Amino acid sequence: MDPKKFRKAAHRLVDWMADYLEDPGEYPVLPDVEPGEVRAQIDDEAPGQGEDFEAIFSDFENLVVPGMTHWNHPGFFAYFPANHSPPSVLAEMLTATLGAQCMSWETSPAATELEEAMMEWLADLIDLPRGFTGVIQDTASSATLVSLLTAREAAADGEVGRKGMAKGGRDWVIYTSTEAHSSVDKAVKLAGFGLENLRKVGVDEDFAMCPDGLAEAVVADREAGKVPLAVVATVGTTSSTAVDPLREIGAVAEREDLWLHVDAAYAGSAAILPEKRWIFDGIEYADTMVFNPHKWLLTNFDCSAYFTKDVDALISTFQASPEYLKTRHDREVSNFRDWGIPLGRRFRALKLWFVLRSYGADGLRAILRRHIELARWFRGAVDDHPDFEILAPSPFGLVCFRYTPEGVGEAELDEMNQEVLSRLRDEKSLHLTHTRLGEKFCLRMSIGQWQTEGHHVERAWEIITGVVEELRR
Amino acid sequence: MDPKKFRKAAHRLVDWMADYLEDPGEYPVLPDVEPGEVRAQIDDEAPGQGEDFEAIFSDFENLVVPGMTHWNHPGFFAYFPANHSPPSVLAEMLTATLGAQCMSWETSPAATELEEAMMEWLADLIDLPRGFTGVIQDTASSATLVSLLTAREAAADGEVGRKGMAKGGRDWVIYTSTEAHSSVDKAVKLAGFGLENLRKVGVDEDFAMCPDGLAEAVVADREAGKVPLAVVATVGTTSSTAVDPLREIGAVAEREDLWLHVDAAYAGSAAILPEKRWIFDGIEYADTMVFNPHKWLLTNFDCSAYFTKDVDALISTFQASPEYLKTRHDREVSNFRDWGIPLGRRFRALKLWFVLRSYGADGLRAILRRHIELARWFRGAVDDHPDFEILAPSPFGLVCFRYTPEGVGEAELDEMNQEVLSRLRDEKSLHLTHTRLGEKFCLRMSIGQWQTEGHHVERAWEIITGVVEELRR
Repeated sequence: MDPKKFRKAAHRLVDWMADYLEDPGEYPVLPDVEPGEVRAQIDDEAPGQGEDFEAIFSDFENLVVPGMTHWNHPGFFAYFPANHSPPSVLAEMLTATLGAQCMSWETSPAATELEEAMMEWLADLIDLPRGFTGVIQDTASSATLVSLLTAREAAADGEVGRKGMAKGGRDWVIYTSTEAHSSVDKAVKLAGFGLENLRKVGVDEDFAMCPDGLAEAVVADREAGKVPLAVVATVGTTSSTAVDPLREIGAVAEREDLWLHVDAAYAGSAAILPEKRWIFDGIEYADTMVFNPHKWLLTNFDCSAYFTKDVDALISTFQASPEYLKTRHDREVSNFRDWGIPLGRRFRALKLWFVLRSYGADGLRAILRRHIELARWFRGAVDDHPDFEILAPSPFGLVCFRYTPEGVGEAELDEMNQEVLSRLRDEKSLHLTHTRLGEKFCLRMSIGQWQTEGHHVERAWEIITGVVEELRR
Repeated sequence: MDPKKFRKAAHRLVDWMADYLEDPGEYPVLPDVEPGEVRAQIDDEAPGQGEDFEAIFSDFENLVVPGMTHWNHPGFFAYFPANHSPPSVLAEMLTATLGAQCMSWETSPAATELEEAMMEWLADLIDLPRGFTGVIQDTASSATLVSLLTAREAAADGEVGRKGMAKGGRDWVIYTSTEAHSSVDKAVKLAGFGLENLRKVGVDEDFAMCPDGLAEAVVADREAGKVPLAVVATVGTTSSTAVDPLREIGAVAEREDLWLHVDAAYAGSAAILPEKRWIFDGIEYADTMVFNPHKWLLTNFDCSAYFTKDVDALISTFQASPEYLKTRHDREVSNFRDWGIPLGRRFRALKLWFVLRSYGADGLRAILRRHIELARWFRGAVDDHPDFEILAPSPFGLVCFRYTPEGVGEAELDEMNQEVLSRLRDEKSLHLTHTRLGEKFCLRMSIGQWQTEGHHVERAWEIITGVVEELRR
């Protein structure tokens, strides 16, 4: 395909893209496909001769699009949002066109310096105290692993890197809450600590970590001869968006000399709102923190903002400087290849720049406030209905609830709510997922898609109550 | 920005993008910027109010573009290529627009199944024997870490994941060659083996690993009570594209029960050419292998094709299944979140599909053959020149050489070649990087950019000989 054909094809795509962005709600949010159905329509091998773009694009429209879950459908209330937005998509078009590999300053000076600037903008927007330096990671999962690997090397003064965990390590223990994200378990496993050395501290009635429970666990481990190393606190848990009390946890961490990582993957974006700054009260105790502009800040995946107080510890954990990567300016610049796991890096700061400038801080605040207000409305509707129950606080865009008709015992409620969720799956205009809170099967209504408006949420509630009516009959 | 404004802005971008793709060679390949120069022009904080797209795009043109290294400039001969191509860029436009998060089958069925199909297409194109299953990782660095973590868990039967390296691990040793990529060191460090337990086996005169050296090192370690675990072989080393002899290494690995990972990051793509299939002779011994379509197969970064023989071992190393991620079809489908480090995933198979179909296997073969032929020509020119020396074989698109004027001793040659490289940096139309082979400072002419033609390479040679003429005076 030569650039001339590209121009024509790309203009055609732009019209499709603009149509899609105008109303992704015209598609069913969940595709009507069974496992294997898409695969069966794809050829078994690559063609020998090149094909025309028309044929490829037609297959995209007829095979791929109907087989996708539409994350930017205004009725997407599942998981947490994976936002994008028009300016973010525009930036991704340019990133792809430049095709730069942003591993080092010299391989892309503007990309490196724009990333530095965007991390400063974000730190400022969420009112992070001075002393944190940022870098983009792909995901919060990777960021949590990066943090624990850094904690490991810092505590061992590099001995693990040199001698390995068996000889350079100690009998380390990691702490988090029972409500922490599974990526903490994964990071503990991958970093070689072992799941037996991960303590899941209990939570209070709002599903936030109990600092006393943390303190007691640390003492018990020290008495058993173990070495408490790090605690991962969560600001906005995945199940219910509970906010661990950073100030109290931080005080324990400081007293006990624990590394503190804060996973604010979803909820961190809320701190651009002055009225939500309380979520980071105590963040000054943290060694590292991560939040995902790709979740709730209108920026395409992947874009996790990772902040650390100790850049030297980060770099000495991840640095490799073979001859073929050395450049003239290595001592004066940031070479982000040494700030995480992958060597190669995409130009991810560009989309942040486009988004933050297109909306402005106030524009983004207005969108987040709308989501929070919609969640408040939905929560009120659930609360007012005699046959539903709220299961957790809703400080952000998530409402956790279940159907609890009168006279139905706890034993049957799980099954009944699974049936509600299953029937909701047949609806084309909304998608919810579930979790368990305590032992209870719970529906999650997660509001955060950039095009979701009041009427989408009202319609969702109508559908949910309708399904319940059906069930009752 | 509403979708209407998006449509207008995106059409405007497409014209810029098509112009750029028509002739990225009109830009200086390396930007004329000093550290901090771009940063100084970016505001210190995000704007409060949203800005017009015109202002943002104008800054992109005037601030970002002149500050970028142009990886797709036809005179980009540095590192290895980070290819893109028009159909790949088109696919990235759609990926960004869908904005899907492809962690699970249910979150994007078509993306998962297209990824399965594309991995089969690639396996078939490079003639990988049956038994390998593929998944896209972000980079070869991550893939090598994924492989070593899997080897670790498989050897310990999951005991490391449960008890940690200290109690669940053994006194493991990893092997690679002195010419292996720095990502092997990094993976050994991060996986907790310790760099002391990484053996750098010597290479032959062509910089390929000596299988006898490997066998001897393994025996010595066993005698010392250590436990040889894994060997990382390289097909196309970063410094000189040396090809480790997989058949001999594989035989040692089989005899000694070592996990074998093959890093073919750059050169693996060459195996789409029947005449280059020899590079994978013995690949059937491998447990895992990786190559990067984002290097030399016209596909935008990030896209590393990772193949494993033991999907169960991979999944049991990386799986986490919290309640909130469970879906109806988990037993019947591939949930790629469990096949690597990050949870979230972009829809990366789409660009492979667009590239493989747009060019067809024959079209891609023609491009790779052109690059190899251009390298052959360049090598011949260097070889014919009395004042230059070839330093390694060139089976692919890379030529390693240095300036060796008569009467100059070895001691001065390094400095002299550094000076050549430094002067080449002032040229706007080409960019080379360096390495060391043995102790010798060496220039790397890496030909693989999709728009690079004979006249670009001839011009590069003119410039290089011109610089040398200047130096001589």
